[in-house]
Amino acid sequence: LKPKVDINADLGESYGAFKVGNDAAIMPHITSANIACGFHAGDPVTIDKTVKVAKKHNVAVGAHPGFPDLMGFGRREMQLTPDEVESYIIYQVSAIRGFAETAGLKLQHVKPHGAMYNMAMTDEKLSKAIANAVKKIDSKLIVFAMPKSALDAAAVDLGLKVAHEFFVDRNYNPDGSLVSRARPDAIVQNLKKTVDRTARAVCEGRITAINGKTVRLGEVHSVCVHGDTPSAVKIAEALKKGLITAGVEVKAVGSFI
Amino acid sequence: LKPKVDINADLGESYGAFKVGNDAAIMPHITSANIACGFHAGDPVTIDKTVKVAKKHNVAVGAHPGFPDLMGFGRREMQLTPDEVESYIIYQVSAIRGFAETAGLKLQHVKPHGAMYNMAMTDEKLSKAIANAVKKIDSKLIVFAMPKSALDAAAVDLGLKVAHEFFVDRNYNPDGSLVSRARPDAIVQNLKKTVDRTARAVCEGRITAINGKTVRLGEVHSVCVHGDTPSAVKIAEALKKGLITAGVEVKAVGSFI
Amino acid sequence: LKPKVDINADLGESYGAFKVGNDAAIMPHITSANIACGFHAGDPVTIDKTVKVAKKHNVAVGAHPGFPDLMGFGRREMQLTPDEVESYIIYQVSAIRGFAETAGLKLQHVKPHGAMYNMAMTDEKLSKAIANAVKKIDSKLIVFAMPKSALDAAAVDLGLKVAHEFFVDRNYNPDGSLVSRARPDAIVQNLKKTVDRTARAVCEGRITAINGKTVRLGEVHSVCVHGDTPSAVKIAEALKKGLITAGVEVKAVGSFI
Amino acid sequence: LKPKVDINADLGESYGAFKVGNDAAIMPHITSANIACGFHAGDPVTIDKTVKVAKKHNVAVGAHPGFPDLMGFGRREMQLTPDEVESYIIYQVSAIRGFAETAGLKLQHVKPHGAMYNMAMTDEKLSKAIANAVKKIDSKLIVFAMPKSALDAAAVDLGLKVAHEFFVDRNYNPDGSLVSRARPDAIVQNLKKTVDRTARAVCEGRITAINGKTVRLGEVHSVCVHGDTPSAVKIAEALKKGLITAGVEVKAVGSFI
Repeated sequence: LKPKVDINADLGESYGAFKVGNDAAIMPHITSANIACGFHAGDPVTIDKTVKVAKKHNVAVGAHPGFPDLMGFGRREMQLTPDEVESYIIYQVSAIRGFAETAGLKLQHVKPHGAMYNMAMTDEKLSKAIANAVKKIDSKLIVFAMPKSALDAAAVDLGLKVAHEFFVDRNYNPDGSLVSRARPDAIVQNLKKTVDRTARAVCEGRITAINGKTVRLGEVHSVCVHGDTPSAVKIAEALKKGLITAGVEVKAVGSFI
Repeated sequence: LKPKVDINADLGESYGAFKVGNDAAIMPHITSANIACGFHAGDPVTIDKTVKVAKKHNVAVGAHPGFPDLMGFGRREMQLTPDEVESYIIYQVSAIRGFAETAGLKLQHVKPHGAMYNMAMTDEKLSKAIANAVKKIDSKLIVFAMPKSALDAAAVDLGLKVAHEFFVDRNYNPDGSLVSRARPDAIVQNLKKTVDRTARAVCEGRITAINGKTVRLGEVHSVCVHGDTPSAVKIAEALKKGLITAGVEVKAVGSFI
Repeated sequence: LKPKVDINADLGESYGAFKVGNDAAIMPHITSANIACGFHAGDPVTIDKTVKVAKKHNVAVGAHPGFPDLMGFGRREMQLTPDEVESYIIYQVSAIRGFAETAGLKLQHVKPHGAMYNMAMTDEKLSKAIANAVKKIDSKLIVFAMPKSALDAAAVDLGLKVAHEFFVDRNYNPDGSLVSRARPDAIVQNLKKTVDRTARAVCEGRITAINGKTVRLGEVHSVCVHGDTPSAVKIAEALKKGLITAGVEVKAVGSFI
Repeated sequence: LKPKVDINADLGESYGAFKVGNDAAIMPHITSANIACGFHAGDPVTIDKTVKVAKKHNVAVGAHPGFPDLMGFGRREMQLTPDEVESYIIYQVSAIRGFAETAGLKLQHVKPHGAMYNMAMTDEKLSKAIANAVKKIDSKLIVFAMPKSALDAAAVDLGLKVAHEFFVDRNYNPDGSLVSRARPDAIVQNLKKTVDRTARAVCEGRITAINGKTVRLGEVHSVCVHGDTPSAVKIAEALKKGLITAGVEVKAVGSFI
């Protein structure tokens, strides 16, 4: 049996006249789009366009909800109550789902953004609130989460499907967490290395940590490429080719999870 | 056959710690709630609570989208492109619909708010964009509009159901438009008069204009009470009783239109 | 020598059509107004009006900057960099200062709002950033802070004047910190008790903690009453009278610190 | 006597992670920077950086206030009351002035942005409110305006200094107004032509309109280059050189008006 994997990217991060990323160029090389929902980025016109471009390229669409912090792009920790989190997720995911449905698409997944995603690595209350919201909206929505994260556990507890993510150009600590962006070695700069380690992560479920030790990731369902860096298109393109060459079937996670 | 009418009010207009209106007190006296969607008022926590209170009182829920102008409460004219309007409506209505569905309710209607509603009296481009958005989301949604307004025409053109509104405490010009709020006689202050003219509007389809002439309104499907004035609850209560006493059946517009 | 104290309240917390508090009613009973700056509350029209009402009542004006979180009224912790904090404070304080100066007033003080104030009890980085910003704007501005807080220390370090605050209706822990609002006994409900303990805090520099032990506060320069509760006006009025009766001179802190 | 002119550009239009323009590259070629104030663009961190870069390049700083419409970048008409306009201008200009002063600079000018600037061509109420606000803040601030515009008149009426602007790459109608951006010939594409007509506008006070007729502009005090186009730096550079070659002294408007 051929291994399968999804390639996801954060898209639709423009906001009115503020243009971010190169959505149209990256779409041919990915299979799932995480679309910003208006709280940390993504105005309605941008969302509408992004959903339509995704449809054109047969890319599955998901919601990418974040903290209500446009000035900080959702990258700053905020302490919210579980009720606030749940309502904010329902609001944002429902908005994206509306655009997906008017375009004739079904919403595939939900992936929290930025600080919310990072906090959901370990914050159980937050993770439970996110999972509760997703379940209330549609229990068939797939939650994107780091393997073994609090969000992974919370979603599984509620019977939701979880897509385990691998970050293609981020270095990992021996415990399976990401090397902090504050460190100079957070990012894997070499393109070939990025492709090779991703292929290994997908095929073998393990990678080499920053200290040389092997990290068991378990099954990887989706690999994340960044949409907002100048080299994003190049990475996504090389990655898709490299994975196919390595014998991996690249397709939207909703089709095989 | 008994005449039927819906009583609607704008609710869910709080925003975080900024509290507006008295939603819980007015709910027993209305049949449809127009719920603010987050652009001019209404944060997600407020929306969630408002939908739940509406459900408890068996009140039908609708979306009340407005301009993205929290500082001006959506009461200031903005010149948007049709694409912007369409996307802003899809975004806001979809968000409210998400909360309705998670509460087990079906969204009944869409009523534009404030300056958007006022501009849609005569602005055909704007009205067409609003109607387009509603049709894309769900062609069974009812559009609330002033009889003979541009929005009325645009919605009918697209085959959407339209609920004609009557404003219970606003004086009317001889041409069927509302007396401007800039004038001292814009509002009908007397409660009995408010009830009596509304009963006549519903039963006979006409009222007396500010100059004494009779205005033919045609069929009135929903009468609008304000949710944010101190006397709103009293007016709504008196109105419901008065209409029932006058032989009118008071029920949500989705049940009879 | 007569003891002197300032009475301060948070005002100007409306935001467009969202009305908060009763500024005009509380003004006669206070000597310093902390005016919201537009990030957590307070639109420019509200700021302008509040400054003018303060002037009319001979109340000194200060800036009350908060986190950029209108949806959460600045009451939710946010993790910002020192650069962000410094810039956000300069922006907000400068805006308020502009209104003060156009009204012919001199800005007297800066008091951080909500979660920012609470975090500045212990967060040294945040406190240093706040103090840096104040010093850059005008080294004669007085910083309002809890005695022994991180903000108190940071401001003193930079040579700024600090007004030590006492919260008139909040219960205190034995270590001089406030009893958490999450506890039912956070607030002193009795009006007479509120007045008596405040007079004692001002005259003797100590109060009785929640457990009966005496807490030494040191010198109290300003006592804080809330502007947004229904009973706020009554409390402020009783407090001013009670303090004067107890022999305290009630005047703006800038006149005696 | 050598003719003198100022070269201005709109800068500081980034917003948090949303990056706009190339401020550092354009600074060496201009003499006045119009800095976005946070309503249509420009967060406090961006403002702080922009002011410091301007200082480094000896560029005079001004405020570039706009409508509170981040989603529309201040380019959409909004109908505000004069009180709202006045307060919004005081707020924004004061904020920028705060950053200028903490950097040791004096604020030189105020130039309204986008739709506000366009509306101020003919809207007398709006223009009067803008001029009132500027005068209240500091009667020595220079107002940037189109010659013969409503804003020009309103500012002169209040005794304010006005810098007449010329738009270097916009075609003009025979009446001295700009050719609408909706038309394909709105922009002068040729760089040499842009420089030559600007030199003529500055030296002779006239240009050739789109229909070949001569337009008398009167004295031109400042010429506006765009900061957010890819070719902006090139245009600014060529313009400065071309003007100097034509015998024009290029310097900040505050030094000669």
